[in-house]
Parts: sequence; C-alpha cells; structure tokens
Amino acid sequence: MDKKQQDQLKKEAATKAAMMVESGSVLGVGTGSTVAFFIDALGKRKDEEGFRLKHIVTTSNRSKKQLEGLGFKVDELANIDQADLTVDGADRVDDNLDGIKGGGGALTLEKNVAINSKKIIWIVDESKLVQQLSGFPLPVEVLPISCEQNFKKFASQGLKPKFRLAEDGKRYVTHYGNYIIDLYADPIPVPAGLADYLDHTVGVVEHGLFLNMCDEVIIAHSDGTIEDKRK
Amino acid sequence: MDKKQQDQLKKEAATKAAMMVESGSVLGVGTGSTVAFFIDALGKRKDEEGFRLKHIVTTSNRSKKQLEGLGFKVDELANIDQADLTVDGADRVDDNLDGIKGGGGALTLEKNVAINSKKIIWIVDESKLVQQLSGFPLPVEVLPISCEQNFKKFASQGLKPKFRLAEDGKRYVTHYGNYIIDLYADPIPVPAGLADYLDHTVGVVEHGLFLNMCDEVIIAHSDGTIEDKRK
Repeated sequence: MDKKQQDQLKKEAATKAAMMVESGSVLGVGTGSTVAFFIDALGKRKDEEGFRLKHIVTTSNRSKKQLEGLGFKVDELANIDQADLTVDGADRVDDNLDGIKGGGGALTLEKNVAINSKKIIWIVDESKLVQQLSGFPLPVEVLPISCEQNFKKFASQGLKPKFRLAEDGKRYVTHYGNYIIDLYADPIPVPAGLADYLDHTVGVVEHGLFLNMCDEVIIAHSDGTIEDKRK
Repeated sequence: MDKKQQDQLKKEAATKAAMMVESGSVLGVGTGSTVAFFIDALGKRKDEEGFRLKHIVTTSNRSKKQLEGLGFKVDELANIDQADLTVDGADRVDDNLDGIKGGGGALTLEKNVAINSKKIIWIVDESKLVQQLSGFPLPVEVLPISCEQNFKKFASQGLKPKFRLAEDGKRYVTHYGNYIIDLYADPIPVPAGLADYLDHTVGVVEHGLFLNMCDEVIIAHSDGTIEDKRK
C-alpha cells in the first residue's frame, strides 16, 4: 500500500471516530497522523452540520493549533470537570485493549486526560496491534533527582532501561522538566504487575501503560477494512 | 519547659544521632530545628575527631548552607548511589515508626532521599508522637494539569482536601512546579491503604506517608529523657 492509500484508510478510520462525537459534548483530543485526520473531520462536521463542542482539551500543541485553525476554542484540563470522550492514538494495543502510549513524550498529560474521560477511543493502523504488549519500549517519566537510582533499579529488575535522548544527544526533557527512561523489556511480562510496580516506585511521575482505560479501538487494516473493536 | 530547656533537650537528641554516623559513610540530612542541632554536632565531630563523610546529600537549602558553613561538601542525590544513613525530622510518628512528612513542602525530595537510604533515623520531640497517624494534615504533591479533578476525587473519598496556600494567598508551588493538596482526614484510616490509593492516583507526584521506611526514632521527651525507639 502506498502513502496515498494509507492516508485514505486513516482518513476513513478518523471520519468514523468523528461521527461518534456528540454535539455539545466535552471532547479530549490526542495527537498523531490519524488524529490529525480526525480533527479535519470534526472541522467538516462543524461547517456542514453546525456541530459544536462544549469544551475541547488536547494533549498536544500540534493538535491545539489545528483545532484553533478550524475555529474550535481549546481549553485547559484544569478548567473542565471531565471529558465525555477522548480520541487519541496509541503506540501499541493488545487484545484486551490495553496499550502503550508516550512514544511522543507526552505520556503524563495523555494519561491525565485519559483518566478524566468517561469514554476513550483509540484510532490506530494495523501495525499497532499486538496480541501481547510488545514491540515498543515502555516510556517512564522520572524525576531527575533520583533518576540514576531508578535507572539502576529498573536494570536490576531486567527491564532494560535506556534514557531517552533528544536530537542534540542530551537527555530528552519532558514538558514538566523530567527525564524519560524507556524500558526495552519485550514483551512486557504481566503489564498489570509492572504498572503496579511503577506506580509504587518513588521518583516515577507516570508511565506509558494505559490499562483498563480504552473502551473502543478503530483499526485501519492494510486490506482496506476498518475494524471497530470494543471491550 | 521553656525554650532554653527545650533546645537543650533537642541538642541532646541531636548529639545522640550524630554519634551514630560512621566516619567515611554517605549521609542524608533532612531539615528542622532538631536537625540543625544535629548538623552542629556533626561539625563538632569533624573538628574534634577528624570525622569525615564520603558524601552528604540534603533535602533542604537551609541544611545545605549550614553544612557548607561547617566545611562539609554537599552533593546531589543524582551523584551518589545511595546513602548509608539519613537523619531527618518528621511531622508525626506512630507506634510502627510510620510517619507523616512534608509539612515544609519538600516531601518529594525527602522521600526520594529516604527511599535511597540503607537506614533512616528520625529525631523528633515528644509532641510528634502519636499512636495512630493523626493531628497533622497529609501533604500530597499534585501536577497542576489535573489538580482540580484530583481535589474533587479526594473530597468525594472523604479525605477533606485543601490546597496549600503560600504567604501571598496564592497556591503554594513546590520546587518542581506542582501544588500541594493537604488532606485533613484525621486520623488517617489505614495508612497503607491510603498510600496505595495515592500511589495509583494519576496526577499525584508524591505523598507524605512514609511507611516502612524509618528504622529508628530518637525522641526528646518533655520530662528530660531521650528515648531511642527501634523497629
């Protein structure tokens, strides 16, 4: 499949998701190439149907700009109670609709938006689907003060940690001034157990395991079909 | 007991703790009025016995200045592996040597130093002793992005949250740019359960429950005795 066909497929999946957004609702919007098509589809509904949203929050500056460019007003999470629906991408999704997110480095904001959403839909292409969470390093956002100690602890637990680097070769710094340690243990053995361990690890701000959060995944398959998978 | 007698008592407790520090070791130092006497006692040992420390880390700028004034070189936690011993104060200590810390707002750094210490001694005066953790609000450091949602969740759980305010009446901002929500549920019902809940709450950076961490408490009693309580 060439890029044009791929984009067409993403667009179809994105349009399907956009049709699920109720007018007058509070919407959370993630980021990624498919989400960009989703935002376009929202803009189209706005122009053609008089579709409106009560509030929109987003996890990325790129999505924010795109939404504002289409005439949507973007709010801060702090100013809303919760989102009725959040539409986002994912780096990996398994058979239970559990996922890995945070490849782009915004896992903490993504998880805070997700946890404050009544419903979550992920739009992904087929390449993100796995039986068991694997094939993508798990990002863990850590406080700089004890990152070295946490790195060693992760290594001693067999989690194969690597500090994420920025383009300049220095450690990547998150929006909150923290570092990201990517865990290369693959596949992730017992995601719920690892999530629990990371939640209890002092110095960990957030991690990219999104378990029991996603309600529905819209999948663009390479054979041209769009699959809608629910819990 | 007047202030002079009280200080004398704190000094005795502090000196006792200072005698427990081994020359050549890596030391963590907390903050507070009794810890200030502890640092003085360390300085005395340095001058009189040629006592030295391999590394010192501290959780407060005040302690850092005091240590440096006495000729000690203060390191960052990131530059050491772990501390052999950390000496700190506590806001409350119960019969199991579990405690509440973070009244001063530095709970996150305090817990990161504590978790990376082989042994922990707290020096407190009698007023901090409780049978069950109570009489002091529990500080929770939260990310600003979802602090409103967390505040509501805490309220709905009966935890009686209040945002900590700074002197100017605005929200207190931690060293890491976050807010502190103090929980006034009193006494704390099942501290281990609450700690687990907070560890799993997205948006919580750290909380002031220090459970199963402290090995020894040195208590300055108002009757003039010094008690040494161990696990």
